[in-house]
Amino acid sequence: MSRWKPNALERLREAAIELFEERGYEGTTVADISSRAGLTERTFFRYFSDKREVLFSGSEELGAVFAGAMASAPKTLAPLEVVAAAFEAASPLFEPRRASALRVRAIVAAHPELRERELMKTTMLAKTIASGLQARGAPETTAALLALTGLAVFQTALERWISDAAKRDLAYHVRDALLALRRELARVGDRSVRRPSVRRTPTL
Amino acid sequence: MSRWKPNALERLREAAIELFEERGYEGTTVADISSRAGLTERTFFRYFSDKREVLFSGSEELGAVFAGAMASAPKTLAPLEVVAAAFEAASPLFEPRRASALRVRAIVAAHPELRERELMKTTMLAKTIASGLQARGAPETTAALLALTGLAVFQTALERWISDAAKRDLAYHVRDALLALRRELARVGDRSVRRPSVRRTPTL
Repeated sequence: MSRWKPNALERLREAAIELFEERGYEGTTVADISSRAGLTERTFFRYFSDKREVLFSGSEELGAVFAGAMASAPKTLAPLEVVAAAFEAASPLFEPRRASALRVRAIVAAHPELRERELMKTTMLAKTIASGLQARGAPETTAALLALTGLAVFQTALERWISDAAKRDLAYHVRDALLALRRELARVGDRSVRRPSVRRTPTL
Repeated sequence: MSRWKPNALERLREAAIELFEERGYEGTTVADISSRAGLTERTFFRYFSDKREVLFSGSEELGAVFAGAMASAPKTLAPLEVVAAAFEAASPLFEPRRASALRVRAIVAAHPELRERELMKTTMLAKTIASGLQARGAPETTAALLALTGLAVFQTALERWISDAAKRDLAYHVRDALLALRRELARVGDRSVRRPSVRRTPTL
């Protein structure tokens, strides 16, 4: 077994997905994954801290792309446009994984411990986005509100991207979901601002 | 120790919060909590499946209140108004816990296993809301988008409610956060709808 192989990370990830599908997640060891990828366990642990992590590779990179895009967005952009810009910047990272995305989702959905890990990753991304908004001047709770709302848009966009027969990119679906949300919020009444309407009876 | 005591659930919860603060979460056993509350371990396990659950009591009731409010909301209401109605219906459940909310939050924040449990509870609430919207005719991914957005509003409202010196109720903060979000979304441009602007050069 050679000590250096190109694309070790992607090969480990692909091997893990195959094995989880063939033998189940519990029935697969780190040794199995490494061996299927033609690599050593030591190499596995150079990339991933444990078996769960192999399905979430790229999430640190994703956070870094979000942070970078937010920091470099034009100063005049509205906060949710800054969040959208971050998601759009990350869109190309997802394209090579379109084919495996459905498979990974099925594996994660079937295992509570993987769902928990995914939730923790999502929470970390929310923190990254909230920090980026605070760095641009948003108050703390507003930043958290917009970060969580942004993630709702992002998760919806991911769902639609995964199952999009027309294979439009993630950036398209981000914008589409954001506009759908804008339409829905435009239908919310501003009850707290308006005074209760006084019913006018015609003067007799 | 008498076999029946009123408000067993609240007493167990209060005893747990006290002990977690005094001895730490890890240093406290179910036996300690039961004993402090003047109850047996058997009684504890009648209310909670494990030590973690004692901090999240009421989340099933919360889900039931959400579902009930959504099912009975007027048919003409916009989807996010239906979600807001669910949160507003739950507002009175929170009022008795205003004083302990900050203490619970501090304990949860300090323990990853409690944060994970909290995330799972939040995800379950999102599913409840999404189901309620689908039952009213919303397509699946739209329902998920609005449920997650609603939870972003709810979490923000909770944060502001906990630290509100004026002690306005949760329903007030839900409406306030929803309107803040509406304002932010109104600032998002409809780029995907507009054609790219053509720069007009004066005819020479």
